[in-house]
Amino acid sequence: MKVKGIARRSIWLREDGWSLALIDQRHLPHEFRIATLTDCAQAATAIRDMWVRGAPLIGVTAAYGVCLAMRVDASDRALSDAIELLLATRPTAVNLRWALESMRSTLLALPVGERERAAYQRAAAIAEDDVSSCSRIGDHGLAIIESLADKKKGPLGILTHCNAGWLATVDWGTALAPIYKAHDAGIELMVYVDETRPRNQGASLTAWELQEHGVPFTVIVDNAGGHLMQHGKIDMCIVGSDRTTSRGDVCNKIGTYLKALAAHDNGIPFYVALPHSTIDWTLVDGIAEIPIEERSPREVSHMRGLDQEGQWQEIALMPEGSLALNIGFDVTPARLITGLITERGTCQASAEGLARLYDKGA
Amino acid sequence: MKVKGIARRSIWLREDGWSLALIDQRHLPHEFRIATLTDCAQAATAIRDMWVRGAPLIGVTAAYGVCLAMRVDASDRALSDAIELLLATRPTAVNLRWALESMRSTLLALPVGERERAAYQRAAAIAEDDVSSCSRIGDHGLAIIESLADKKKGPLGILTHCNAGWLATVDWGTALAPIYKAHDAGIELMVYVDETRPRNQGASLTAWELQEHGVPFTVIVDNAGGHLMQHGKIDMCIVGSDRTTSRGDVCNKIGTYLKALAAHDNGIPFYVALPHSTIDWTLVDGIAEIPIEERSPREVSHMRGLDQEGQWQEIALMPEGSLALNIGFDVTPARLITGLITERGTCQASAEGLARLYDKGA
Repeated sequence: MKVKGIARRSIWLREDGWSLALIDQRHLPHEFRIATLTDCAQAATAIRDMWVRGAPLIGVTAAYGVCLAMRVDASDRALSDAIELLLATRPTAVNLRWALESMRSTLLALPVGERERAAYQRAAAIAEDDVSSCSRIGDHGLAIIESLADKKKGPLGILTHCNAGWLATVDWGTALAPIYKAHDAGIELMVYVDETRPRNQGASLTAWELQEHGVPFTVIVDNAGGHLMQHGKIDMCIVGSDRTTSRGDVCNKIGTYLKALAAHDNGIPFYVALPHSTIDWTLVDGIAEIPIEERSPREVSHMRGLDQEGQWQEIALMPEGSLALNIGFDVTPARLITGLITERGTCQASAEGLARLYDKGA
Repeated sequence: MKVKGIARRSIWLREDGWSLALIDQRHLPHEFRIATLTDCAQAATAIRDMWVRGAPLIGVTAAYGVCLAMRVDASDRALSDAIELLLATRPTAVNLRWALESMRSTLLALPVGERERAAYQRAAAIAEDDVSSCSRIGDHGLAIIESLADKKKGPLGILTHCNAGWLATVDWGTALAPIYKAHDAGIELMVYVDETRPRNQGASLTAWELQEHGVPFTVIVDNAGGHLMQHGKIDMCIVGSDRTTSRGDVCNKIGTYLKALAAHDNGIPFYVALPHSTIDWTLVDGIAEIPIEERSPREVSHMRGLDQEGQWQEIALMPEGSLALNIGFDVTPARLITGLITERGTCQASAEGLARLYDKGA
């Protein structure tokens, strides 16, 4: 998608053909900075410290992290160490494991001397697969938006939580792909963007993406969505997923469950957009089985932003010495989800729905 | 309640017997500042700009605002002007109207020369009524907490939203009164405090109150409550009310509705604590009828706190030029509320429940 009119991806190879460039998302929306990664440890840091985030983008970054490791040492041991290091960075999104297992099985089958080149090929294929999945998610979601817009006078109100835009993937995004395609098709929209505390990915990343692309949006606090639904301002919700169980439970950014409850209470369709790499076929019950990341309390007790002189500042929000708890994700049970929008089409959030599209993971 | 060991109220008369002192809550939790009000216009500013907030405290402050006006001019016209000015400060909390109508009817019945003294008497009575109502709410709520604690091993998890503590009233608080009484009775608690964006009354005021009183608490972002309920961390919710309809719908800080939905979905009791002054007997359907305050978008787009040098800073959170919407309250339908805890006891959130306690407002 475009930034100041220039087509960008969230991650790409530099002209040297091996070092990795990515948008360092910690500085958005106030600064557009590009970081360069030259070794696997840096890739792990970039994922752990959230220079990049978003389930699909984490997977792609990890795949390239393996490439960087293979340049130095392509032995079985080095491969296994690299994968272990990268896997430990974030526990919830399953795309990370999926991408790393895909790298492992590809590379282990090859002689050591061929692994570096094959790693870059496989990582590039994972990235391209993500772009094309997201574009197709956009097409399938567009059909849903079109049919809702046909029945609506004035702009269609769409609520989204966190950032499941192109910054969470390589390009297009998951939840935002249908929104971009609908906007480009001339459908009048108003996107309500949940701020998404504690890290504010909505207010910083989603708002920035939509502004750069020219899609009308309004930022709201996470508390406001229920009220807007009660008063007819929201016609549909679309969010992303960090892990989807075989039965259609969806683990996504903390607070997603609350919006799904409100949508259900107000009869508003609630869709989840996700590529196949987000589905964990080994899991059934999302609430019981998905590991949920707990992050530093400092993300709750402090906040970063620009002061009046345009300098970054971190400010304290709570009385000194207060306990805070920072849970990264929650699970929305399938019963609250109207449909899953995947690259293969839209299905019910159920074992049957997913099996129809994927033939049980095939 | 106590601040650094000294018993305090949120508002009181100075030793001169007429000027008004109050805790300027805009500076909490980082600074404890007392402001003095000497005229009615200052009282209106203190309410509008949220030096004080919380439905009961707004009512008491407005009553004293009338006193300050009566000192200067106790004519019918001056009384009516003062009430009009004060009524226009905040639209949602009904206590404001209730307190002002109580002042009006008391003072209009008296000769002009007696009004100043009578105004101070009536305002003091409203304040004392609030203290005793809150204390009795604490007693009735304590009984509920005791019965839940009897069935629980380990600390009882109580979630609260916004600040309905002693800073929202004259003393004790509404939602926090039962918590203070339970803590003082030796019941082991863990209070989960919703941050409460956009103005963060939970992270700043509730956290500060609980810390000063020594009640164990954990601040969470507004997004986290649903997850904690799914995982058995919350045994009950208690919130306050800014306006309660005759049928038991409750208008409270934006986001309350989302927590009530989550409590309902997880079978967790959801209580609302409120004094009689919060009940609007003229209203039936809260969602359709209660006027909801919309405040400055800047409260969403910017945040204030202490920087690393201990200076107040306001920081920008969103891309420049983004739209934001700031809705102050939402309405939780009676069907989601387990019970209303009032100074007369606990009742069902229904016309019948309220009528049993209040004989239809008598």
